[in-house]
Amino acid sequence: MGESLMGEKSTQKRKYILEKARTVFSEKGYKNVTMKDIVDACDISRGGLYLYFSSTAEIFMAVLADEHDEDDEEAVVAALSGDASAGDMLALFLKEQKKEILRKKNNLTVATYEYFSVHKVSAKDNPLKNQFDTAVTIIQKLIENGIENDEFYCENPLGCARNLMYVVEGLKIMSKTCSITEEAIDRELMYVLEGLVPEE
Amino acid sequence: MGESLMGEKSTQKRKYILEKARTVFSEKGYKNVTMKDIVDACDISRGGLYLYFSSTAEIFMAVLADEHDEDDEEAVVAALSGDASAGDMLALFLKEQKKEILRKKNNLTVATYEYFSVHKVSAKDNPLKNQFDTAVTIIQKLIENGIENDEFYCENPLGCARNLMYVVEGLKIMSKTCSITEEAIDRELMYVLEGLVPEE
Repeated sequence: MGESLMGEKSTQKRKYILEKARTVFSEKGYKNVTMKDIVDACDISRGGLYLYFSSTAEIFMAVLADEHDEDDEEAVVAALSGDASAGDMLALFLKEQKKEILRKKNNLTVATYEYFSVHKVSAKDNPLKNQFDTAVTIIQKLIENGIENDEFYCENPLGCARNLMYVVEGLKIMSKTCSITEEAIDRELMYVLEGLVPEE
Repeated sequence: MGESLMGEKSTQKRKYILEKARTVFSEKGYKNVTMKDIVDACDISRGGLYLYFSSTAEIFMAVLADEHDEDDEEAVVAALSGDASAGDMLALFLKEQKKEILRKKNNLTVATYEYFSVHKVSAKDNPLKNQFDTAVTIIQKLIENGIENDEFYCENPLGCARNLMYVVEGLKIMSKTCSITEEAIDRELMYVLEGLVPEE
């Protein structure tokens, strides 16, 4: 058997473990998850799991890293150079945020908060912070595009972008602890968007 | 021994347990705390603890209920009828929020999020939601007062109040997971406050 085939098998197995682990973290958060939980979910041997990962912390970081690869944000960045209006693009971006806030299946919000409240990492190495900053940059650029096209009026695009992302973070945690409705999310995001539309 | 004396001793013991438990929840979150942790922290017998409480969930809710009694919000509500300007009062209220976001000692944010992501309660019975709604009402009233006095300009006081509180929630969770600076908190709160000041 060639090494490339072994390599591929091993890549697939790793991917399979991360998918199963994702579901476990989504259901139990981070703190309560043990290596045995992941062994059970994958239906493999303990030794089999330890060939790939040595701790739940390591698995969780790998799950998060995978998450980032599939990020919708990249699609939005690509579209930034497209023909759509800034307003449409911002609305699209917020629709993705809303989907994430409401996502019931495989939602890692609680596990992520648990992980980073236990494992303190520097801002530079914190994917939560990096994701937040990336989103802020995208929104800022969208607002700036909108100002150039006279779609938007805003004196402080960066401030507005940060305000919007802190609201998104607030909505995320409140939706996990107080079951926020879709209407409430729409209302909060529209509040910020309406502030960008120039008065008649 | 009179019943009133017994009653008082028991009230003091209960208060002592809740104080110790508060520290435990603040240090370990909610999920990882066992009755043994609280027995150890209080240096009492297991039976002694069970005379007062039957589960960590019950203790945590009692800690939260105590929290609410001491709430600074009441002071702010009282001051609403005072002589201070709406701007000063709003700044005072936000200073309290900031203190809470930055509080390192006996901070229940993480434990509270863990508790309510595990124990789903109706919005009506959720102290997290009630505290949020109370804060929104206070801010809304302060903004409305400010509008009446021509201190503020705002077309949607309720919308602005909600925006502000979602930002506060976002700051709270980000400060626990990404170590936010005091400057970042000031900047976010000032962004909203500046939006209330009428343009020259």
